[in-house]
Amino acid sequence: MLAVFGHTNPDTDAITSALVYASFLSRQGVQAQAYRLGELNFETAFVLRELGVDAPEMLPELPAGTAVALVDHNESAQSAPNITELTVTRVVDHHKLGDLITAQPPYLRFEPVGCAGTILLKLHREANLGVEPREAKLMLSAILSDTLHFRSPTTTPDDRDAVAFLAPIAGVEDVEAYALAMFAAKSDLGDTPAAQIFRMDYKEFPFGDPAHPDAVQHWGLGVVETTNPAYVFGRKAELLAAMDEARAENNLNGVLLSVVDILNETNRTLILSATEEKVVREVFGAETVDGVADLGNRISRKKQIVPALEKHFMPQA
Amino acid sequence: MLAVFGHTNPDTDAITSALVYASFLSRQGVQAQAYRLGELNFETAFVLRELGVDAPEMLPELPAGTAVALVDHNESAQSAPNITELTVTRVVDHHKLGDLITAQPPYLRFEPVGCAGTILLKLHREANLGVEPREAKLMLSAILSDTLHFRSPTTTPDDRDAVAFLAPIAGVEDVEAYALAMFAAKSDLGDTPAAQIFRMDYKEFPFGDPAHPDAVQHWGLGVVETTNPAYVFGRKAELLAAMDEARAENNLNGVLLSVVDILNETNRTLILSATEEKVVREVFGAETVDGVADLGNRISRKKQIVPALEKHFMPQA
Repeated sequence: MLAVFGHTNPDTDAITSALVYASFLSRQGVQAQAYRLGELNFETAFVLRELGVDAPEMLPELPAGTAVALVDHNESAQSAPNITELTVTRVVDHHKLGDLITAQPPYLRFEPVGCAGTILLKLHREANLGVEPREAKLMLSAILSDTLHFRSPTTTPDDRDAVAFLAPIAGVEDVEAYALAMFAAKSDLGDTPAAQIFRMDYKEFPFGDPAHPDAVQHWGLGVVETTNPAYVFGRKAELLAAMDEARAENNLNGVLLSVVDILNETNRTLILSATEEKVVREVFGAETVDGVADLGNRISRKKQIVPALEKHFMPQA
Repeated sequence: MLAVFGHTNPDTDAITSALVYASFLSRQGVQAQAYRLGELNFETAFVLRELGVDAPEMLPELPAGTAVALVDHNESAQSAPNITELTVTRVVDHHKLGDLITAQPPYLRFEPVGCAGTILLKLHREANLGVEPREAKLMLSAILSDTLHFRSPTTTPDDRDAVAFLAPIAGVEDVEAYALAMFAAKSDLGDTPAAQIFRMDYKEFPFGDPAHPDAVQHWGLGVVETTNPAYVFGRKAELLAAMDEARAENNLNGVLLSVVDILNETNRTLILSATEEKVVREVFGAETVDGVADLGNRISRKKQIVPALEKHFMPQA
């Protein structure tokens, strides 16, 4: 039984793509089961509740050598704790290729599109496999989530085509209304502890030349996508305290928490200390005022934040 | 213009897959040009001569940041000299994933099949692109070459399906006769210098944990696939001298040259020194007699030699 899972601090794409890919593989004769690497966020919980679909189980600790399939991620820092001991046989992803190495030839399907769900739809169509309404709504939800319903600069024509194909199958007549309902669910943070808000869409990245491990910097990058940024900034002090703890606990060089206003397409990022302030000034030309740096319309961590930091920390050739 | 190329010391798959993928991309609206990273072997020269197709040009030195597509390889040690400064946007490959890292999300298409040509045929069929006779014969030749016409344990049902699909389009009625003609051309080494024979199908691999660069071992693994092993062993002394030079020049921990008898499906490997003798005994249980170790039916470097060495040199978890 092949274990299929997305990244830690899972978002909607990480959860739904695990479900859809496991189902796809099973239909292709490869026994597979979806798992998750963390708690659902409020948007994903809304999507699964709407569909009456159970969340995948938490991934148990797998014995070394177990075959696994990754969706929506490939870097070890975002995967199962013992991922380097597991045998990665398949990856479906739309992120940059990180530190993944395999001992045998794998199945890899990476495309620079907005969502892993978009690639999964292609796999169905290439295999001439019909798409069930349940799978269609899972993929549709992931694409709307990852692209913020086409607001994100990560959006590609393939993502738009996929939504146009999937919406009628999923029975979603008003796609924007459904997307806004998802975003409202995501933004309804209630009394969620600040540490949990910081962790909800959080990824760690090693920056610098991996051939010189001592010079590699480790950064933790959180994002809160919300239709209600005022609520998040109302909890700024708590969030900065949570970032301070995370930086110490995980031995990080820096942490950032970007508060993305979905509807206005802006990014104002919480700045913990002079370390982050200096990097954000040098990389993005943004000054920090009262613990907040205005990063303008850089609303995509993947496309606008990570590559800029990667370039900043990479030694010049 | 996207530069498309296969590995150094190119074999038939490395050359034909560069030609076919560049043509495929151009038909898809991505301007692309095929290149090679070394001289053609005698088999590949035969294939191109049969078709009246010009060999791709040698890859010029590309400026840092140039976008490139890799076929039939992904490890930096087998690629363009300045590959780590280039921007890899696409890879079509059927080998284990090595040290490739990208700054942006790439197109990756890896499958554990016998030949990159098999994957390229899938790309055509998925895109509903017709296959021209010229492209069909290029892909067919690569698959017959890489799988030794299905003799290699790397052969998969997908490779067999691809050959069955391609042969009629390519106008090849007797596939085995065509494969034997290719192998005969490959085996007709004439007065080729020993150093060139050793380099003809030669790859270097780093073995061990890349997080500890000081502990990584570098090995050079050559293969001569031939229908006439007696000829090769008749030049044993010259070949051992060439291996000795290569080991010194490239700062390698060890070198092996496997002489694969295509028709009898056996591998007898030239052993240079006690270093290689010890590793081959520990990894394959094979004793060295008179400079030659009998590795039995391990005729696939990719599937039977490299993974065993990889495991041997990897620190235990």
